[in-house]
Amino acid sequence: MIHEAMRYTLVSGGKRIRPVLCIAACELVGGNEDTAVPAASAVEMVHAMSLIHDDLPCIDNDDLRRGKPTSHKVFGEHVAVLAGDALLVRAFEHMAASTKGVPPMRVVRAIGELAKSVGAEGLVAGQVMDVKPEGLSGDVGLERVEFIHLHKSAALVEGAVVLGAIMGSGSEEEVERLRMFGRCIGLMGQIVDDILDVTKSSVELGKTTGKDMVADKLTYPKVLGLHKYMEIAHKLVEDAKEALALFDAQKAAPLLAVSNYIVDKIN
Amino acid sequence: MIHEAMRYTLVSGGKRIRPVLCIAACELVGGNEDTAVPAASAVEMVHAMSLIHDDLPCIDNDDLRRGKPTSHKVFGEHVAVLAGDALLVRAFEHMAASTKGVPPMRVVRAIGELAKSVGAEGLVAGQVMDVKPEGLSGDVGLERVEFIHLHKSAALVEGAVVLGAIMGSGSEEEVERLRMFGRCIGLMGQIVDDILDVTKSSVELGKTTGKDMVADKLTYPKVLGLHKYMEIAHKLVEDAKEALALFDAQKAAPLLAVSNYIVDKIN
Repeated sequence: MIHEAMRYTLVSGGKRIRPVLCIAACELVGGNEDTAVPAASAVEMVHAMSLIHDDLPCIDNDDLRRGKPTSHKVFGEHVAVLAGDALLVRAFEHMAASTKGVPPMRVVRAIGELAKSVGAEGLVAGQVMDVKPEGLSGDVGLERVEFIHLHKSAALVEGAVVLGAIMGSGSEEEVERLRMFGRCIGLMGQIVDDILDVTKSSVELGKTTGKDMVADKLTYPKVLGLHKYMEIAHKLVEDAKEALALFDAQKAAPLLAVSNYIVDKIN
Repeated sequence: MIHEAMRYTLVSGGKRIRPVLCIAACELVGGNEDTAVPAASAVEMVHAMSLIHDDLPCIDNDDLRRGKPTSHKVFGEHVAVLAGDALLVRAFEHMAASTKGVPPMRVVRAIGELAKSVGAEGLVAGQVMDVKPEGLSGDVGLERVEFIHLHKSAALVEGAVVLGAIMGSGSEEEVERLRMFGRCIGLMGQIVDDILDVTKSSVELGKTTGKDMVADKLTYPKVLGLHKYMEIAHKLVEDAKEALALFDAQKAAPLLAVSNYIVDKIN
């Protein structure tokens, strides 16, 4: 039952952007993609866990995810909570047990980075802020939205890229450049999702749309108005490209392709 | 809010048996206790997380823990879910970032062991089985109870001892002996708790008692009858002592003291 629930969300057809970024970052710094595969899988497990817990009745109360009933709808709430827990620890177990060809000190560091991107300063922090929006107006609202986006959405994308760079034995400068790249496209991804939530139908997206607006959730479209979205998204693409300027343009092509893929969804 | 919720359960006055065991195991194999302190803290964080999630309305639905309202009663269900998640990843982050004086390869191994003791083959597996007891009778019930105890309760105690032995640079044989010791006293601890749940009042224990019986939960007292409890508990103390026979008796005294402390609660 628990394994079935873990697999249900893990293999439910996401776009695998985080693992792709992790492996691409590893290759960009000259590493062999094999060394980043366990980290890439770990990031996807953490992502799946965050979806399961976010969809819970006590958090976002979502019935539909990627066109399918959410985990707690299929397996019950208690299994959904525990399957999320199990996926979270499996991520760390997998990185610790399956990473090959990387100095153990780098594995330890990567595990610390993954944990940081998820915890009370990362993804979870964003989710906590997202659940309880209090009265907001003007700049306060924007700051809050930025906090939520930065933590809830960008942290794990940033983590994926950083993990790849660490596993690929990137230099400190390479790791920090890629961290900035990851943060930019993580933010960009969330902005794009917010916009699609407003502008597309649930059939097209395979999830309940307009829900964030109805649920009084904080989104950029709401705080800034839809008309500013393109400006911000394009500024982030530029920042992302800037962060990659250090690298050979040809080698950086796969990462640039991912950032173009994200922003193209709203073009 | 999230940090407050994390601290609330973490510092709510448990007996710290797991960290004590972790550090004692480290010292028993000749290690410096400092090397095991981050692992010991990590185990306590995982334990706190398991309490928070176990108490949730969709799992055990407990209002009282250690004489205080449970996490979701104080902070709300959504914060309780997320505080548990944050504690879980903080455990791995802390081990990765704060362990000093231990070869990184051992840190990686210890992280893998901790994850294994929590995940779908450990604590979480036990909790999943515990929530949905189906029709049971005779041996089937006993097997199921053993599975639950072994996973839900013994796994993390075993993990604590194993982590200490790894951090203390114990040999393979020492690690495996201590694993057996940890498993025995982990099982013993759960049996003792089950018995106290039946025989003591909630005022004495600071939690809702008799609840496991009422909630149709599987316990040794229920499946075996209370009269067999002492036999099993004492057998486990003997097995635990046997597992320590390899070590110098004087050095093993702290671990033996913990096992005596546990069994003495029902004497």
